[in-house]
Amino acid sequence: MDQLADLHISINREEGGIAAQIACELRESIRQGRLEAGVRLPATRDLAADLQVSRGVVVEAYEQLVAEGFLLSRVGVGTVVAPAGSREEPPAPPQPPPVCTPFYGHRATSPDLSSFPRERWLASLRHVLAHVPSDALDYGDPGGVPELREELAGYLRRVRAADVHPENLMIVGGVAQGLSLTLHVLGGIRLAVEDPTSNRQIPLLRRAGAEIVPVRADEQGIDVGALRASGADAVLVTPAHQYPTGVVLSPGRRAELMAWGGLILEDDYDAEFRFDRDPVGCLQGLAPDRVVLSGSISKSMAPGLRIGWVAAPADLAHGVRQARGELDLGSPVIDQYALAHFLRTGAYDRHLRKARREYRRRRDALVKVLAEHLPEVRVHGIEAGLHVYLELPPDWDEHGLALAAQSLGLAAEPVGPMRFTPGPPAIVVGFARLPVHKTAEAIAALRSLTSSRR
Amino acid sequence: MDQLADLHISINREEGGIAAQIACELRESIRQGRLEAGVRLPATRDLAADLQVSRGVVVEAYEQLVAEGFLLSRVGVGTVVAPAGSREEPPAPPQPPPVCTPFYGHRATSPDLSSFPRERWLASLRHVLAHVPSDALDYGDPGGVPELREELAGYLRRVRAADVHPENLMIVGGVAQGLSLTLHVLGGIRLAVEDPTSNRQIPLLRRAGAEIVPVRADEQGIDVGALRASGADAVLVTPAHQYPTGVVLSPGRRAELMAWGGLILEDDYDAEFRFDRDPVGCLQGLAPDRVVLSGSISKSMAPGLRIGWVAAPADLAHGVRQARGELDLGSPVIDQYALAHFLRTGAYDRHLRKARREYRRRRDALVKVLAEHLPEVRVHGIEAGLHVYLELPPDWDEHGLALAAQSLGLAAEPVGPMRFTPGPPAIVVGFARLPVHKTAEAIAALRSLTSSRR
Repeated sequence: MDQLADLHISINREEGGIAAQIACELRESIRQGRLEAGVRLPATRDLAADLQVSRGVVVEAYEQLVAEGFLLSRVGVGTVVAPAGSREEPPAPPQPPPVCTPFYGHRATSPDLSSFPRERWLASLRHVLAHVPSDALDYGDPGGVPELREELAGYLRRVRAADVHPENLMIVGGVAQGLSLTLHVLGGIRLAVEDPTSNRQIPLLRRAGAEIVPVRADEQGIDVGALRASGADAVLVTPAHQYPTGVVLSPGRRAELMAWGGLILEDDYDAEFRFDRDPVGCLQGLAPDRVVLSGSISKSMAPGLRIGWVAAPADLAHGVRQARGELDLGSPVIDQYALAHFLRTGAYDRHLRKARREYRRRRDALVKVLAEHLPEVRVHGIEAGLHVYLELPPDWDEHGLALAAQSLGLAAEPVGPMRFTPGPPAIVVGFARLPVHKTAEAIAALRSLTSSRR
Repeated sequence: MDQLADLHISINREEGGIAAQIACELRESIRQGRLEAGVRLPATRDLAADLQVSRGVVVEAYEQLVAEGFLLSRVGVGTVVAPAGSREEPPAPPQPPPVCTPFYGHRATSPDLSSFPRERWLASLRHVLAHVPSDALDYGDPGGVPELREELAGYLRRVRAADVHPENLMIVGGVAQGLSLTLHVLGGIRLAVEDPTSNRQIPLLRRAGAEIVPVRADEQGIDVGALRASGADAVLVTPAHQYPTGVVLSPGRRAELMAWGGLILEDDYDAEFRFDRDPVGCLQGLAPDRVVLSGSISKSMAPGLRIGWVAAPADLAHGVRQARGELDLGSPVIDQYALAHFLRTGAYDRHLRKARREYRRRRDALVKVLAEHLPEVRVHGIEAGLHVYLELPPDWDEHGLALAAQSLGLAAEPVGPMRFTPGPPAIVVGFARLPVHKTAEAIAALRSLTSSRR
């Protein structure tokens, strides 16, 4: 463990985010060659003792770097520095030094939070605090505030053609909680997921008790023949905009999926941002007795609000509501009332219209610039959502390109870790935070990093 | 099922709270003798179909009335109207008709929400929305907003003598979520609970995977000898103010408990409201490596905010944070920042001081009036918290008295359902919402209902 003396890990305890600081220091040591490929890192317990932090903090830092490809975790060996190939960067990027981002934070799918409607949201909060009766601040219905369920049911019927009413609609802390509660109530089911799929979600699904069965998704969406053959009890799909490929489920596949007999968990991810034509209604509206619809305002408003919903068949809705009434007693109420007011007054619609217009401009700019500067790359999934899927030439290194993009401040992730079966190298790039006037510069810089790599 | 035609259940679908409406209608039918003891109610599925509501709604209404003692649920028979004895009420109470309370809502432990500091809370929200960077609204640390963890750790060290720092402190959606996550991470442990204990918590503990082992609690708190003999892996205790008995754990028992080797889950329930002397520090401060401290602002501020915390040993803290990062991605951030600001500016301390003073006045008034009007009743647990524990003469009917108290608008619950082993009849009565000038009148009315019953 004598490498430790050379690590020069310095922590600023005032600043918080200790794990991110450790990850940052290690990352820089690897980048600058102070820690070479194959070097074994200290056990988390030892490093924690040396730095006088809890072991969990070191585990988190290591996990972050494993996720980023700087480290490899090997059973029986420990944590070692990854071979340079998988994350090699140019010696002198023409940019300021890479920002050490925290473990949690920006995702390729995060919205542009600088346009969060702070004033209007505050106005809603003010309205709520001036008007709700005191009893509204007490232990509430774990299924959610009735006013919000009413407003939201109306909205989802109108905009998403969903078959929801306040009784089968529950407010939850986002799609993740909606899924984990649903799976908890269903018990250990065999759950098919699209391949590729969000690798952030797999640990959730497993922890909630599901057995995962990957099913191929292609340029039309999930392969329903393969789903039928899989023997799965239920399937988790993102018909409005598949993550990561960005595919919108084709009409044929849609019909096939509805003819399949199992339970469908529909993540209505990115449905708000369909750019070129009207969004297709959700699947739930077609078969409310066997589709569970989950959605959230994480993309339309902000992930930090942690507000989402689940619409489920009556028995399942009852089970989810009861589980929530026992496990955490429901979501905070003031934000729920505020969102009800936001919907009722039309502020939500106005905000969405404005956001959709701006995101469309950003998407158009990105697509145009990609065609100019990275013509080798095939751009997919641009019909909807806040990210594009870039399929790379076979000899390109998706991990390296994603890191290069990240070093330029772009929200990018390699697709490899999202695949159960190998596929072409690809990355996803979020454009929600990339202003039109910076697009050309960013992609040109990415081009030059890419060229220097090969 | 021909009783159904006589039920006259009318629902106002505009109003929401359908289950509460159904429960209310059934309750009135039973009270007024339209539904007699022993009559079997329609199956939930049938009534749901008749009323055109989801079955879950009817189940909820039935469950509410079973909990209240109006109905009995019998395996193989169904749901029947309970014998009149267990819930008989006087024919003409000298009061307005009983309010039909919703399933969720007031508890005996709920604070006085009419004194929720709306203006100051809004000022904190305004401050947050004016000052937090946009990135703060993104996916956040599932362990909670760093600023809040810092402020709260300082507060808990200062006021509760807890040994917490931002790294081992996680923000959760209240004590319930803190417990369910902790138990989820611990896996299926044998968990000792105090007998009697909150019957609301038992389903939570079981759902989170614990096997429940009741251990006697007496006038000194939990019996540590019995705990030692129980073979439990861990124990859930409320040392600051036992629920429901209101006992503060005695110094001797405290020492015994600390000498016990298992994991202690400390629900720091009602610790803010210790009236006659300074509160004793929490157990966690004595042994942070084997005590998990949970607390919340549900009593000090409002349950509807759904903000609580868990301080745990490093490995467990890491597990809980990771579980939350997968299952629901953490608590909403704006309220967290607002609470950090509320703590930092001293608004929290000022609010608590004012509330403590007023609750003390209300407690004193209640204790005095109880001694005058109900001298047969022994009043316990008045040192702390927002409720008193009333031990009744052996021939009194705790269920009837609790219902009578509820009909007068008092927050009261019978203790019987909270016991694993039989004990004397007793009820808990919350006084947080009972203004001093109304105390005498309320208890005199309760006296007269009590007299008419015997």
